[in-house]
Amino acid sequence: MNNTPVYDKVALIGIGLIGSSMAHAMRRRGVASHIAGYTHRAETLEKARSVGFADSLHSDLAGCVKDADLVVLATPVGTYAVLAEQIAPHLKLGATVTDVGSVKSAVIRDVGPHVPEGVHFIPAHPIAGTEQSGPEAGFAELFDGRWCILTPPPGTETIALERLKRFWQALGSDVDVMDARHHDLVLAITSHLPHLIAYNIVGTADDLQAVTKSEVIKYSAGGFRDFTRIAASDPTMWRDVFLNNREAVLEVLGRFSEDLSALQRAIRWGDGEALFNLFTRTRAIRRSIVDAGQDTAAPNFGRSKKPS
Amino acid sequence: MNNTPVYDKVALIGIGLIGSSMAHAMRRRGVASHIAGYTHRAETLEKARSVGFADSLHSDLAGCVKDADLVVLATPVGTYAVLAEQIAPHLKLGATVTDVGSVKSAVIRDVGPHVPEGVHFIPAHPIAGTEQSGPEAGFAELFDGRWCILTPPPGTETIALERLKRFWQALGSDVDVMDARHHDLVLAITSHLPHLIAYNIVGTADDLQAVTKSEVIKYSAGGFRDFTRIAASDPTMWRDVFLNNREAVLEVLGRFSEDLSALQRAIRWGDGEALFNLFTRTRAIRRSIVDAGQDTAAPNFGRSKKPS
Repeated sequence: MNNTPVYDKVALIGIGLIGSSMAHAMRRRGVASHIAGYTHRAETLEKARSVGFADSLHSDLAGCVKDADLVVLATPVGTYAVLAEQIAPHLKLGATVTDVGSVKSAVIRDVGPHVPEGVHFIPAHPIAGTEQSGPEAGFAELFDGRWCILTPPPGTETIALERLKRFWQALGSDVDVMDARHHDLVLAITSHLPHLIAYNIVGTADDLQAVTKSEVIKYSAGGFRDFTRIAASDPTMWRDVFLNNREAVLEVLGRFSEDLSALQRAIRWGDGEALFNLFTRTRAIRRSIVDAGQDTAAPNFGRSKKPS
Repeated sequence: MNNTPVYDKVALIGIGLIGSSMAHAMRRRGVASHIAGYTHRAETLEKARSVGFADSLHSDLAGCVKDADLVVLATPVGTYAVLAEQIAPHLKLGATVTDVGSVKSAVIRDVGPHVPEGVHFIPAHPIAGTEQSGPEAGFAELFDGRWCILTPPPGTETIALERLKRFWQALGSDVDVMDARHHDLVLAITSHLPHLIAYNIVGTADDLQAVTKSEVIKYSAGGFRDFTRIAASDPTMWRDVFLNNREAVLEVLGRFSEDLSALQRAIRWGDGEALFNLFTRTRAIRRSIVDAGQDTAAPNFGRSKKPS
């Protein structure tokens, strides 16, 4: 299906997994008349050119954002402050600046002060991704059926907000609006803590001298391999997430550690009932996630039965 | 392909996910002449009958193991001691008793003393499974390309060991042989700790009052959902694993907690370099697991791009 464009020109500052997927998804339904992409890396630009998801590719910020109706920051969040400062003089009056970062309070802190009078600023976070990165990893369906959270600062114009909502819906997402601070806490538990734990357990396994690395790899089908997928996510992006959502991550990590200590105690003292009760409760959550269409119901994530 | 049967009669004590998958895999290649299945639950027996993977189904242990050349304990490991005592008088001379439990030292402790003179006892552990359970969850390909670890006690006869190896190879597995104690440590890190951590994080999320359960479910695609799969595994089986591999689990859990404290400190103090270095190292492990054929290389575990 083809829609009327939601924005005429969309400038993607960053064309990795998320930026390139947005471009594919925009093209699928004619969401923009012109898609401009920016990267400062010659190699990334070359890859993007060969995939061909943009109408124009730029290694200068000014050229990319010129006349853009929507400007999307889609690089690691640690780079936003500098980028925002650099694009500010080139933004069109009435344009909207948004982003796709996994944290939102820090983005408002870093980007907000640079946004000129007459330009809208609405941070956004599509809850979608894979463990792959780069301009060749993107695909049009990435956002289909996933949620995108908008965190408009107080005073955001309704018309600009509604337009950005329509944009994300046209990309395949369901859209929620919430306060940046609440977003950061919700994501700390549903995304940041899981990534941290996954990185940590993979690191612990890698360090265990009594068990060789080849044993860890050979017998990973016992459960370990499920953790390695998200522990393969982009290191720069995730470093920036933890540095920029410190407070909420430390809060949920504290809860996690408390609960783990209780579990450790149950194991040490042979409290089978406590273990059984927890393991039964967690099973129900899995069912709810599958029922909500947020994961596949197929056993083993639908990994093919035959090893490839 | 059809092989000569490796054992004439195989008795499966327990016909859940693993038992029923073994039956399907035996039938696929004619690995046994007669497959007998035991369960004490009328409901399970009825389900097994309707799937039809066994040549005979029994609610009495004696009838199931009578004349069996291979007897497989395939119930939660906490039940083994009683089962072993009960089947002992009915075992055929020259038969092999084995199991599929996720812990091995405790199995030798619990089962070993009951095995009569003239009967072989070789514990085994196929590193394969899904989050599903019950006789309807089994499928013939479960063991294909996965490892099965045998932990023969000292003095095990080579001929009996080689035969059990051939059996698991005919079921599709690669076979390794190791000491029970080492097995328990290897699995503590590759399987037991990942399950424990997954159960724990799902429990923590469920308890967090500032974030509603519906938010946890809606935004689970940010990483959390990957943990819920193994946290949906059979509660009884996993309770028994933790109660019976206490020492090794507490050891690796101690390492994990130490590493997590270091990571927590890096976040608190904004040590981006430490975070980046760990996140880069863990990415390499994922690649090794995919290269070793122990997981799918497709992004997102090959979850279909379009939500179902």
